Amino acid sequence: MTDREIYSGRILKLLVKYVVLADGKPHLREIVEHLPGAAMVAVDASGQVLLVRQPRPAVGAAVLELPAGLIDPGEEPIETARRELVEETGFRARVVEPLVAFYTSPGFTDELIHIFVGTDLEEACAAQDEEEEIEVVRMPVEVALQRVMQAEISDAKTVAGLLAYARLANPS
Amino acid sequence: MTDREIYSGRILKLLVKYVVLADGKPHLREIVEHLPGAAMVAVDASGQVLLVRQPRPAVGAAVLELPAGLIDPGEEPIETARRELVEETGFRARVVEPLVAFYTSPGFTDELIHIFVGTDLEEACAAQDEEEEIEVVRMPVEVALQRVMQAEISDAKTVAGLLAYARLANPS
Repeated sequence: MTDREIYSGRILKLLVKYVVLADGKPHLREIVEHLPGAAMVAVDASGQVLLVRQPRPAVGAAVLELPAGLIDPGEEPIETARRELVEETGFRARVVEPLVAFYTSPGFTDELIHIFVGTDLEEACAAQDEEEEIEVVRMPVEVALQRVMQAEISDAKTVAGLLAYARLANPS
Repeated sequence: MTDREIYSGRILKLLVKYVVLADGKPHLREIVEHLPGAAMVAVDASGQVLLVRQPRPAVGAAVLELPAGLIDPGEEPIETARRELVEETGFRARVVEPLVAFYTSPGFTDELIHIFVGTDLEEACAAQDEEEEIEVVRMPVEVALQRVMQAEISDAKTVAGLLAYARLANPS
């Protein structure tokens, strides 16, 4: 019944904790401590959003997502979002604004994702992440939103980021 | 360099896998297999949404969320959403429709959440989950959406579910 660390690895730790609830008894909680991340809704002058598709072993499929990555130690979330956009798509956003932030699944993990909007895009000298196999997919924001509502875009940060962007653009 | 299971617990498993990427080398992936869940955007006749606030040890705070829970073995996601709404709020939704579905964080976990919209609410004979300390919070959908955009509502399924509901109601 004592808290313990099960695993400490590259991007996460697994802890088992016992939490006393209203019934006065300790209840097991399995908790994953995960590094925070940042993602970018990058929209070009013609209203197209830059997404990336990459293999995700955790779900056994390639997933269409906002450009995103883990925040390096000491890095500001906005810098992570800028950096990942360049690394993953080869584009730089000259204007970057905060959009929303949320825990991906607070029932078991502290992973927090900060989402930004990037506009005024320009091509950068991109060196794609060596480790990553990433395809850049560009589509009109409206098409991306249709795919969200049809559950064809199925990544929480991408669903939430695109919908928040649409609301910001059209708050009524 | 062989795949292995680190932990198998109540709601999750932790696996370490080695994935060969384009560079021909194996890369470590830390993967959490997690039971899927379902959540409900429950809106009453006056346009108020039923949310719940509960302590979340993983993030060290009480978090405002859609009523939600793990899908029991053999249970359809829509039944989970109906059941959790009753258990957590004491209300039953007579009309329930699918809204969106997504992976909470496909970079490390297969956790999938199905979101439904529940309307035509009626009070049920609620027995609150014994294990859970849950406060029901009711607010106009528009107020909830403002809190999303101000990052005061900070749970991915709740952010995505509320924004998707708003888009469904007002797709322009």
